[in-house]
Amino acid sequence: MASEQTPSDARCELKPIAEFRSMYTEKNGTPRQSGICPEALGCFTIHKDVFNNPEHSLEGIADFSHLWLIFLFHKNNNSYTKAKVAPPRLNGVRVGLFSTRSPYRPNPIGLSLVKIERIEGSCVHVSGADLLDGTPIIDIKPYIGDYDAPSTAATTDQSTSSTHRTAAWVSCPPIESLSLNFTPEAERQTEQLSAENQLRFIDSADLRRAIVNILSADPRSAYRRKRCSDRLYFFKVDCVHVTCWFNGNVAQVLRVKMLEDSDQTDE
Amino acid sequence: MASEQTPSDARCELKPIAEFRSMYTEKNGTPRQSGICPEALGCFTIHKDVFNNPEHSLEGIADFSHLWLIFLFHKNNNSYTKAKVAPPRLNGVRVGLFSTRSPYRPNPIGLSLVKIERIEGSCVHVSGADLLDGTPIIDIKPYIGDYDAPSTAATTDQSTSSTHRTAAWVSCPPIESLSLNFTPEAERQTEQLSAENQLRFIDSADLRRAIVNILSADPRSAYRRKRCSDRLYFFKVDCVHVTCWFNGNVAQVLRVKMLEDSDQTDE
Repeated sequence: MASEQTPSDARCELKPIAEFRSMYTEKNGTPRQSGICPEALGCFTIHKDVFNNPEHSLEGIADFSHLWLIFLFHKNNNSYTKAKVAPPRLNGVRVGLFSTRSPYRPNPIGLSLVKIERIEGSCVHVSGADLLDGTPIIDIKPYIGDYDAPSTAATTDQSTSSTHRTAAWVSCPPIESLSLNFTPEAERQTEQLSAENQLRFIDSADLRRAIVNILSADPRSAYRRKRCSDRLYFFKVDCVHVTCWFNGNVAQVLRVKMLEDSDQTDE
Repeated sequence: MASEQTPSDARCELKPIAEFRSMYTEKNGTPRQSGICPEALGCFTIHKDVFNNPEHSLEGIADFSHLWLIFLFHKNNNSYTKAKVAPPRLNGVRVGLFSTRSPYRPNPIGLSLVKIERIEGSCVHVSGADLLDGTPIIDIKPYIGDYDAPSTAATTDQSTSSTHRTAAWVSCPPIESLSLNFTPEAERQTEQLSAENQLRFIDSADLRRAIVNILSADPRSAYRRKRCSDRLYFFKVDCVHVTCWFNGNVAQVLRVKMLEDSDQTDE
């Protein structure tokens, strides 16, 4: 890109360097941010057409515990973006797009911090990702606390952190918090699936915790929360299909079952 | 982007949303990471062709203390990238590209954490950036500690942090650390410039600290460090030109002077 170009002309074409393999295959139930579900396992393999020896580009990466994944929100199909958006936590109130991590951005770029679990050749296994299966990754950087965490002097506001300040609606959203329970049947189903050990990504023992983490963060959109209180909520974790019911502020897990082959297709 | 595309085909064209105005106009002396020089001030204005009302996209952003800037390394003019690179701190030793924050990446994307100083309409003033003047910004996200800092259990290694692990060469590079001094003449020049209060970006009182921060991080490349020990090192801070000499492990500031008009052009 020539430095003389005006910024509006300085377009840049990006080419994915890897595709993320995730236990999340659809928007419903996928964590909204990285780290929310530490049990979420996934992996990516550096494409062979990026480097002749992709594994060379990962040398030394095991010396770090965490990585940034910079990726494309490839499932967005809206062709324009709005200057203000309604984050789910604000329950319909709109704020400036750049005050949020909304996926609907002028450039559909996402940023996630993940933990490295293990490296096999040019394949990196990670946990805590909030990426859908098939997400194109455009860059990977090591997490370095000295540069990637605020280190300025304490602020004087009411924030819990002494080094940075976050909008109050992020940490204390104006929506009531959810309590969560499993019906006895769903509890039994979860235990049985955990015992059967047939999951593809996560350790079966973590299944219940993964379901709890996903629901505790209230995965519904504001629209869904307000307008669809009569509808059941479905999501998939790994190869398990979960049915639940939001009754006011109670999320109740009704059914936990293995996906049939016919359920595996994306909607 | 259709989800059916193979990842290598799923190219995405990005359009800058803002251009960064920085006190750094050339590679020499520009901090290698954000946060290294908290005195580094800069700003960006959301382009009018991104949103009809660019200031709307920033509503609520003042509720956060820090922002991520995702930007393009627009001054890179190499057309290919290597799987292994030699980070300056490793003094010539090569590691995998993705273990580093090198600007020479398959997709020339940079990530910097900056502190918000103030917002004026669609213009955001920030500090701590490591961006060159004119850098195209492609996305802005609020920093949210819950998602953007590792929160996993303590690791057992020798790292100083209890929550994450960083390659030893990042925090304890195998190069000797620099000591720093100003010649009496340079000291006097710095004091005089600070008193004159003619800087464009930074508070004049911060001038000395900015110079010290830049030099303390050793801004030389490994090549420069090894092969050019007989050459003076020049850099600009704001509208000040700094000359220094690296004598072994001592960085000595020889001259600090205001830029002439004729110096203002980029080389």
